[in-house]
Amino acid sequence: MRIGFLTGGGDCPGLNPALRGAVMRGLDFGHEMIGFMRGWAGLVEGDSMPLDLALVEDLANKGGTILLSSRTNPFKKAEDLQSCRDNFEKFGLDCLIALGGEDTLGVAHRLFSEYNLPTIGVPKTMDNDLEGTDYTFGFDSATEVAVDAADRLKDTARSHSRIMVLEVMGRHAGWVALQTAVAAGADWLFIPEVPCDIQEMVAALKKKLDRGKKWGLVVVSEGAEIEALNEKDLPVDAFGHVILRDRGVGQFISEEIEKHLKIETRFSVLGHIVRGGAPTAFDRWLATRVGIKAMDMANAGKFGYMACLKGTQMEAVPLEKAVSKWKTVPVELYQEVLTLFQK
Amino acid sequence: MRIGFLTGGGDCPGLNPALRGAVMRGLDFGHEMIGFMRGWAGLVEGDSMPLDLALVEDLANKGGTILLSSRTNPFKKAEDLQSCRDNFEKFGLDCLIALGGEDTLGVAHRLFSEYNLPTIGVPKTMDNDLEGTDYTFGFDSATEVAVDAADRLKDTARSHSRIMVLEVMGRHAGWVALQTAVAAGADWLFIPEVPCDIQEMVAALKKKLDRGKKWGLVVVSEGAEIEALNEKDLPVDAFGHVILRDRGVGQFISEEIEKHLKIETRFSVLGHIVRGGAPTAFDRWLATRVGIKAMDMANAGKFGYMACLKGTQMEAVPLEKAVSKWKTVPVELYQEVLTLFQK
Amino acid sequence: MRIGFLTGGGDCPGLNPALRGAVMRGLDFGHEMIGFMRGWAGLVEGDSMPLDLALVEDLANKGGTILLSSRTNPFKKAEDLQSCRDNFEKFGLDCLIALGGEDTLGVAHRLFSEYNLPTIGVPKTMDNDLEGTDYTFGFDSATEVAVDAADRLKDTARSHSRIMVLEVMGRHAGWVALQTAVAAGADWLFIPEVPCDIQEMVAALKKKLDRGKKWGLVVVSEGAEIEALNEKDLPVDAFGHVILRDRGVGQFISEEIEKHLKIETRFSVLGHIVRGGAPTAFDRWLATRVGIKAMDMANAGKFGYMACLKGTQMEAVPLEKAVSKWKTVPVELYQEVLTLFQK
Amino acid sequence: MRIGFLTGGGDCPGLNPALRGAVMRGLDFGHEMIGFMRGWAGLVEGDSMPLDLALVEDLANKGGTILLSSRTNPFKKAEDLQSCRDNFEKFGLDCLIALGGEDTLGVAHRLFSEYNLPTIGVPKTMDNDLEGTDYTFGFDSATEVAVDAADRLKDTARSHSRIMVLEVMGRHAGWVALQTAVAAGADWLFIPEVPCDIQEMVAALKKKLDRGKKWGLVVVSEGAEIEALNEKDLPVDAFGHVILRDRGVGQFISEEIEKHLKIETRFSVLGHIVRGGAPTAFDRWLATRVGIKAMDMANAGKFGYMACLKGTQMEAVPLEKAVSKWKTVPVELYQEVLTLFQK
Repeated sequence: MRIGFLTGGGDCPGLNPALRGAVMRGLDFGHEMIGFMRGWAGLVEGDSMPLDLALVEDLANKGGTILLSSRTNPFKKAEDLQSCRDNFEKFGLDCLIALGGEDTLGVAHRLFSEYNLPTIGVPKTMDNDLEGTDYTFGFDSATEVAVDAADRLKDTARSHSRIMVLEVMGRHAGWVALQTAVAAGADWLFIPEVPCDIQEMVAALKKKLDRGKKWGLVVVSEGAEIEALNEKDLPVDAFGHVILRDRGVGQFISEEIEKHLKIETRFSVLGHIVRGGAPTAFDRWLATRVGIKAMDMANAGKFGYMACLKGTQMEAVPLEKAVSKWKTVPVELYQEVLTLFQK
Repeated sequence: MRIGFLTGGGDCPGLNPALRGAVMRGLDFGHEMIGFMRGWAGLVEGDSMPLDLALVEDLANKGGTILLSSRTNPFKKAEDLQSCRDNFEKFGLDCLIALGGEDTLGVAHRLFSEYNLPTIGVPKTMDNDLEGTDYTFGFDSATEVAVDAADRLKDTARSHSRIMVLEVMGRHAGWVALQTAVAAGADWLFIPEVPCDIQEMVAALKKKLDRGKKWGLVVVSEGAEIEALNEKDLPVDAFGHVILRDRGVGQFISEEIEKHLKIETRFSVLGHIVRGGAPTAFDRWLATRVGIKAMDMANAGKFGYMACLKGTQMEAVPLEKAVSKWKTVPVELYQEVLTLFQK
Repeated sequence: MRIGFLTGGGDCPGLNPALRGAVMRGLDFGHEMIGFMRGWAGLVEGDSMPLDLALVEDLANKGGTILLSSRTNPFKKAEDLQSCRDNFEKFGLDCLIALGGEDTLGVAHRLFSEYNLPTIGVPKTMDNDLEGTDYTFGFDSATEVAVDAADRLKDTARSHSRIMVLEVMGRHAGWVALQTAVAAGADWLFIPEVPCDIQEMVAALKKKLDRGKKWGLVVVSEGAEIEALNEKDLPVDAFGHVILRDRGVGQFISEEIEKHLKIETRFSVLGHIVRGGAPTAFDRWLATRVGIKAMDMANAGKFGYMACLKGTQMEAVPLEKAVSKWKTVPVELYQEVLTLFQK
Repeated sequence: MRIGFLTGGGDCPGLNPALRGAVMRGLDFGHEMIGFMRGWAGLVEGDSMPLDLALVEDLANKGGTILLSSRTNPFKKAEDLQSCRDNFEKFGLDCLIALGGEDTLGVAHRLFSEYNLPTIGVPKTMDNDLEGTDYTFGFDSATEVAVDAADRLKDTARSHSRIMVLEVMGRHAGWVALQTAVAAGADWLFIPEVPCDIQEMVAALKKKLDRGKKWGLVVVSEGAEIEALNEKDLPVDAFGHVILRDRGVGQFISEEIEKHLKIETRFSVLGHIVRGGAPTAFDRWLATRVGIKAMDMANAGKFGYMACLKGTQMEAVPLEKAVSKWKTVPVELYQEVLTLFQK
C-alpha cells in the first residue's frame, strides 16, 4: 500500500511518537509511506517527503511534529479541496492517516464520507475534548506542565498570603483545569461545563480565610463563562455571561477576588509553553499505540475510522464521532471531586 | 462513623493524595477519622493519630505517606492478629480503609472474609500488577522516572557507541519495562511474561548494528527470567531458567551482549529512587479519586471491596480479586508493540 | 546572642535553605533566634516566632519562605520606623539578619547607618541585579524555569514555522534574558543594557529565514526599552523609547516581527510561575552557604555588611554596595555572546 | 585557519553547547572547522567530518556529543601517537581544540609541550576535579540529577523510618557528594578528602535518632575511603582503609549503619543516568562561554592553554595546570558546612 500522513492543528506532545508507531508498523507490511508537510496544506500543495525507518526511529521522545503543522482547512476553498482530491490520486494514496484534533479529523471525515477517500484518523488534543476516546495524547503532558506551574504558584501564594489565579487551556471543556485543580490541591475551580458564580467562589474562599488558611489557588479554564447572578453591576451578554472585554477570565476572577475579599491577588496565564516539550511517559505510550493501531486499521481497510483508547484497549471508532460534539466534563465527575474545594 | 486508615507495603507516590481525598470526603459526613501508623503494625500496637483537615489539606502533591508504612503482616503471628481484632473493637472502628498492594490488601481481605471486620481497600502498586483495576497510582510516577533515566542513558549510549541495559522494577509483571521501553524507543525488552531468549535479542541487536545503528538501549524487568535455549554453557534451574547467582538480570544481559556482539556495554539498575518524589499529575488525579471512592464505599457499607479504576470510572471491586493472581502483561499487548523492537 | 531574621520582597527559591543554614550555624553558638513574619511588617508589628532546629531542619529543598514576606518599607512612615526601632530594643536583638533584595537590604542599610542598629544582609534576587555579589540565589532557579519554557516554545515554533517571543523577568538588568537566550539557543535577544533596535533584529531574523531556517525564538527582558531609530511611525517618549501603552514589550516585539517579516508570531510572558518551586541544586548550595556566612558575620559583629559570593568564596561586603546601583550586564559580556545570534 | 575539534573521555552534559559556541565563533573568522570522531581515536584514524552552522546550530540544549567519544589515549601506543602527528599535518590543522577531562587534556598538553602541536583545551568533568577552573560544565547537571535522587530517597526514608545511603560520583574529589548532601539536607556525608570514620557517623546519626528524627540520608562519594579506626574486625589495606571487596562504599556504609544502629537501611548507587540528559541552564551558559573563549584563544595563538572560568570571567590557563593534580574539596569548605550534619 501507499500510505500518506499529515499532522494538523496546534502541535502537541505525542505527534512524533504516534507517527513513529504507525510508520514502524507500516514497515512490517512493506508499505510505501509519505508525509505531507504542514497539515492539509501539504496535501493541497503536494508538498511531501518519504517516510522511512531512519526518519522516525528517534522520535519516541520528541515534542512537536517533524511533518510540521498548520490550520489550513481545504474545505474553505473549492480549489484547495480539488487539489487535495487530485493529489490523493496523483500520489496514488491507498490511505491517508491524519493526526489532529476536531478540525483535522473533520476534514478527514468529510473527505471520506463526501468524496469516498480512504482516510483514517489519529486523535490529538491537549484539551482532551474529543468524543470517542477516553484520552488523547497531549493532554497528560499539558496537564503535567499546568500542575507544575500550579505547584510553583502555591509557594508564592503562601509566602505572600495571596490568592493566585491560574488560567489554563480549555475552550470548550474543563479537563485540564479539573485535573490540575485536583492534582495541585487548589481551593476553587471554574470550568466551562458548570455555572461559574463569583459569589459561590468568594464564599468558599472566605470560609477558608476565616478558618485561618491565609492563601489560596484558583484554577480556571480559559473558556469558563462567568455568571453574573449576584453581581448586578457587571456588563453581561445575552446569555447572562459577564463580558470580559480584553481581560482574560483569569484576570477578571483575580480582580473580583481582590474586590470582594480585600486580599492580594495575582493571576498567571499558561500560554504556548504547555504545547511543546518532550511528551510524558503516558503520552508516549498512548501515542505509540494509537499510531500502531491506525496502521493496523489501514491494513484492514477500516477507513472513515479513528484509532481510540477505551479503557486499556485500542478501538476503531467512526470519525464522525469525533466531530459530532465536544467531550466535556460530566457534571457527575465535577460533583465527585467538588468536596475537595468546599472545606 | 469512626473510620481508620493505614498505608502498608513499599511507599509510592499517591498515598498522600489518596488519603487526602478520602479524609476530605469523610469530613462531608462528619466521620471521625484515625490514622494507624506504619501499616498493620499501627493497628497491632494501637499506634494512631487523629486525621483532620489541617493534616491532609496540603498532601495533594506530597510523595511518601504521612501515616508511615511497614511490611508487618498480622497473619504471621497469632497474637498480632488478636491485637488487630482487639484494637478494631477498642478503637470502635466502623470501617478500616487500607491503602496498599497485594500483601496489605490480602490482610484486609482476610480480616473481612475470615473475621467479618469491615475493611475497604485502596490499591497501590508501582508495578501495576494488581488485578481488578486498570491502573494503580504509583505506576505512572515510577514509569516517568524510569523513562527519564532511559532518555539519559540513550545520550551516553550514542556518544560512546555502546549498548546500555536498564533494569527496572517488576518482579511478577513487566508493565514498567514495557511502557518504558516503548516510551523511550528502546531496542529490545525483556519482561517476566514472555520467554527471554538471549539469542533472539542478540539477533535483533545485530540487525540494527548491521544497518548502521551504532548504539542501543535494552530495558529489562528485574523479574525477567532468561531462557537458556541456545546457550548450552549456562547453569540453569529446573525450569530451564538461567541461574544468575549474585548478578542482577540487567548485569547478566549486559555481559551476554558484550560476549556475543563485542560491543561496549553498561548496565544501570533503577533502585529506590523511583519510589519517592512528588506524584505525577496522572497519579495525583487517580489517587485522589480512589480515595474519595473508598470513602463513598465506606458510607455505603461496601466492605470487603476495593476502589478501582475501570476506563475512566471508579468502581467497587471485591478485595479477593486483588489477591487472586497477578495482573500481568497480556501476550497480545506485548505482541502489539513488538514491531517497535524488531527493525 | 539574640538574633532576629526576616525575609522581604518577592519570594524566591533559596530563602528557606538560607534560613536553614543560618539557624543551623547559630545553634552551634547557643544563640536564641527569632523570625519576624512578613518582612519588615513583622518587625514593625512585633509579629514573631522562635526559630529552632525542628522548624528549619527540613527546609533544604523548600521553595517560598516560612517567614512569609511583604514589601513593607518602614521608612515610608515615621511611626513604622519608630516601631522597628522600639521592637529592636524590646526583643533585645543583638543582630537582625535581613534576607531580601535591593529594597529590603536598603532598609537594613539605613537602620545600620542612620540608627546604628546591628543589621546584616543576605542578598536575594531572581534578576541577579544586586551589586557586590557574583550571584544571588533565586537567579539560577528562575533561569532554569525560563530555559525550560524556551525549550518548549522552540518545539512549537519549529512545528508551526513561527517566531516565538519569550518575555522574561528583568526590569533593570538582562541577566535572565541573556542566559536564557544563550542556553536555549535563541535567535535574538533584547536586554535593558543595550539599545534595542527593531530593525537590527529584523535584519538578523531575515538573514536566518533567507538561509532556510523557518522558525525562531526571541528572548526579551521585561525591562528592555525599544529604540525607535528606524521606525518613524511609533510613538516615543522623551528618551526616544517606544511607548508601549498596555502591551508588554514581548507583545510589541511579536507584533513588529509579524509586520516586518510576514511570519506567524506568538509571544509568551513568564509571570509568577518562575518565583516558586524547589530551588535548583546550585541555589540550594549558594543559599545555604550565604546563610552560614551571615551567621558567622553576626558572631564576628560584622554589622552593616552582607554575605556575598565572590568566585567560589564567601565574603562580607558593605550593605551600601547593594543599594548604590544595579548590577547590570556588562557590554563586553553581551558582545562576547553576540556571535550566537548573528548567523 | 583550519581548526580541528574532538571530545574525549566520559560524555557529559555541555559538550554539545561548548562545540556550538566554539564553531559559531569560528564562523565569524571564516575558519574551516573539522570534527574528529570518538576522541583521539578520530585523530589517530583520520576519521573526521566538516563542522558547519547547520550541524551545530541546534546543539544548545543537547546532551551527549555529536563528535562521539572514547577513552583512546594515543600515548599508549607509539604508532597511534605517530598517526596523530601525521594526521595533524595531513589535515593541515592550525589548531586542535580538545574538549575533555584530565586524560584528554593531558594528551593535548603533551602534544603541545613535547611535540609543539598547537592544541587548546576545553575542560569538562562531572566530578569538578580539574584544577585551574572554578567550575567545569557537566558538574552542575550531574549534581542536579543527584539532588533529585536524594530528594526522592528522603520520601521513602521518612515513610519507612529508614536510613538511605546514596552513593554518587567522585573518585578523587567529593564535590558532587558535598553539594548534594548540602542541597538535599542530608544527615551525614563522606568524601575522599577527609577521614571517613564510621563511628563518627554512627554517633551523629544516633544523636538524631535520640532526639526523635526517625530517618536519615547519608551521601557518599564513590571514592571515599573508610578508616577502620574504631572497627577492629574489618580487613584493612596498608593505609588503614577498609577493604570493600566487591561491595561499593555505599553498600558497605549501609551495612555498617544497620549493624551499629539496628535501623532498616537501604543504599542506592547513581550510575550512568547522571551522564546523559539535557544540560542545566548553568551548564549550557558555562559550556557556551568556554567554547567561545577557546575559539578566541585559537585566534590569538594561545596554544597550550585551556579556557577556564574564574569568578564570572573567562580566562586562559596553561594546560599543565589541569593535569598537575586534582582539584579536591578544601578542608575549610568541608568544615564550613559541617555544622549542617552535626545536629
